[in-house]
Amino acid sequence: MAPKPKVYVTIMAGGGGTRFWPWSREERPKQILPIISGQSMIRETVNRIRPLVPPEKIFIVTSSSQLGQIRRQVPQIPAGNLLAEPEGKNTAPCLCLAAWHIQKLSPDAIMVALPADHHISDHKGFRRTLKIAVEFASRQNFLITLGLRPTAPETGYGYIQQGEIIGRVKNTPVFKVKAFREKPTRQKARAFLRQGDYLWNSGMFVWKVSAFLKAVKKCLPVLYEDTLILKKAVGTSRERSALKKAYACCQSISVDYGVMEKAANVAMIEAQFPWDDVGSWSALWSIRPKDQNGNACVGSKPDGRGKILTIDSSGCLIRAEKKLVAVLGMKDTIVVEAGDAFLVCPRQRSQEVRQILKELKNKGWKEYL
Amino acid sequence: MAPKPKVYVTIMAGGGGTRFWPWSREERPKQILPIISGQSMIRETVNRIRPLVPPEKIFIVTSSSQLGQIRRQVPQIPAGNLLAEPEGKNTAPCLCLAAWHIQKLSPDAIMVALPADHHISDHKGFRRTLKIAVEFASRQNFLITLGLRPTAPETGYGYIQQGEIIGRVKNTPVFKVKAFREKPTRQKARAFLRQGDYLWNSGMFVWKVSAFLKAVKKCLPVLYEDTLILKKAVGTSRERSALKKAYACCQSISVDYGVMEKAANVAMIEAQFPWDDVGSWSALWSIRPKDQNGNACVGSKPDGRGKILTIDSSGCLIRAEKKLVAVLGMKDTIVVEAGDAFLVCPRQRSQEVRQILKELKNKGWKEYL
Repeated sequence: MAPKPKVYVTIMAGGGGTRFWPWSREERPKQILPIISGQSMIRETVNRIRPLVPPEKIFIVTSSSQLGQIRRQVPQIPAGNLLAEPEGKNTAPCLCLAAWHIQKLSPDAIMVALPADHHISDHKGFRRTLKIAVEFASRQNFLITLGLRPTAPETGYGYIQQGEIIGRVKNTPVFKVKAFREKPTRQKARAFLRQGDYLWNSGMFVWKVSAFLKAVKKCLPVLYEDTLILKKAVGTSRERSALKKAYACCQSISVDYGVMEKAANVAMIEAQFPWDDVGSWSALWSIRPKDQNGNACVGSKPDGRGKILTIDSSGCLIRAEKKLVAVLGMKDTIVVEAGDAFLVCPRQRSQEVRQILKELKNKGWKEYL
Repeated sequence: MAPKPKVYVTIMAGGGGTRFWPWSREERPKQILPIISGQSMIRETVNRIRPLVPPEKIFIVTSSSQLGQIRRQVPQIPAGNLLAEPEGKNTAPCLCLAAWHIQKLSPDAIMVALPADHHISDHKGFRRTLKIAVEFASRQNFLITLGLRPTAPETGYGYIQQGEIIGRVKNTPVFKVKAFREKPTRQKARAFLRQGDYLWNSGMFVWKVSAFLKAVKKCLPVLYEDTLILKKAVGTSRERSALKKAYACCQSISVDYGVMEKAANVAMIEAQFPWDDVGSWSALWSIRPKDQNGNACVGSKPDGRGKILTIDSSGCLIRAEKKLVAVLGMKDTIVVEAGDAFLVCPRQRSQEVRQILKELKNKGWKEYL
């Protein structure tokens, strides 16, 4: 029997908050907010993975400015496992940083990379899929991405076309990835769904840390060189200055585009759990419990200061933080009180919240970003 | 030439705030808010009448709880002219109280009674009409009400049917009132408009104080008796206790229903100015200046804390007090931030704000009333 794989998890938690404005802000992004439940998304993510790995094998990559907030959210993670990027440079440098740490601790480790802000309610199904991926990664040198069976022709996600079956773990097929397709047009997305062999790219990855670093070296040689300084520096007193140096010059690029699309040894396992990236107020409305009129009320506690009153309204998402939010005669509307700002927009247009941020920048009202 | 009439004005400013909730509250009613301009409506009302009468001839009847706020709004009115009712008992007792004051100062005075919360932009036209009414009142013993030419089949107003012409002042006809009609159904209101001889009852009255008290004695003898105690008490140290006594037992009744509809000597002069009682958020939207998309933005000052951002929105009324209010993709919507509450409703349903107040009472959330 093969030795038990040494699994390390990296949680990518560096993103800024835009989609849940005004609740999320630049300095208070989605992952540290209790968007879904009473817990922050980063805490949920850690709790979901904890039965698989002990805290000392969980790394969290975040931004310097979010470090304190993340630490407060997940105090069980050792301080040395919270890695602060000097600036956000997308997922490839982020995963290199984590990989150098893991590689130093355990050169034959299996690395699991997860976003900090996904909603996965079926924890057991999630861990079952991860175990399968870990098992396959430990046997082969493939870079494994988890694929998600599409439920709608979304244009905001990348798609993966599955190729031939290259193996099985406990009857679960592992596919070669035939092609990556970046965010498609609506028409193309519909064609992908009809075709049936396209899955959403989840942004969740499993690989041998050695296989990943080898792939970076091959696909992104300059990035590899730029971060090579970290190989020896991580975990030492020189880490911080090395990090600054590496990030000052390194390319900003996603691991999907920079590595996965270019590498030859990419595999896909279909996720065996329902998934939602909760990418908008509208998505949040979809997954939250609702009253008999289809209103999802967020943040209102019986004894809290935030109170919600709805009259003859339906299909709304309403959030109250400190005030009374009264909604009368509205349909399918997002109404959000958060901090020093208030948002009202149709549920179907909640993706356009970015426009507000753009306009705030134009006006120089940066205090609301 | 007849001696110049001695004109006294009574401003009725005792109403509680419901229609402009959450801006107006029980203890912060419409008349003390700067609903239309930068000035409170009570201040506008006083300023509008000032060229006709000196401050010492202006009485303001309000509630004890609003007294301080009213005083701060119109400091030029002598403190003794601010009459505080122990409780609201509608307009008949309110005008009796003022009438006893005026009668004591000048038994042959002409009394002008005005609500504190109407929007009348044409100050000159307003005073022209009042002068005509005063002139007619000084010659005859009629109770004069100002009639407003209806612009729509409103169901929220009382209607007055004009009878024969009983006189003229400077070519302006004065009509006998044929009938009063309380708030009609929509169908009846339409019929009134078609018929052409129905005007809205403005709630603005002009009469000899002696004629008014005589009419009260005849039409509301019990109320007359109940307030007779005030005749000697007003202006003395006994006024307060007399007021308490009178108000404890007196009937709550409107002057329209209790006196005007019953008296035989009621006349009507048509108002020669545009008028709006600004009875709802929707009415406020109608009269406020708007941006190129038809949005009326209230309370946002360039350097103030209340800020408004509209994107692809039209026909909205938006008020920001201390927060940023961002409205994206909304049409014809009322969005109001005020104090500890926030309101969102369709413009066409802003009359239903009362329902919110009812629901707040049901829930015991009285701090928001």
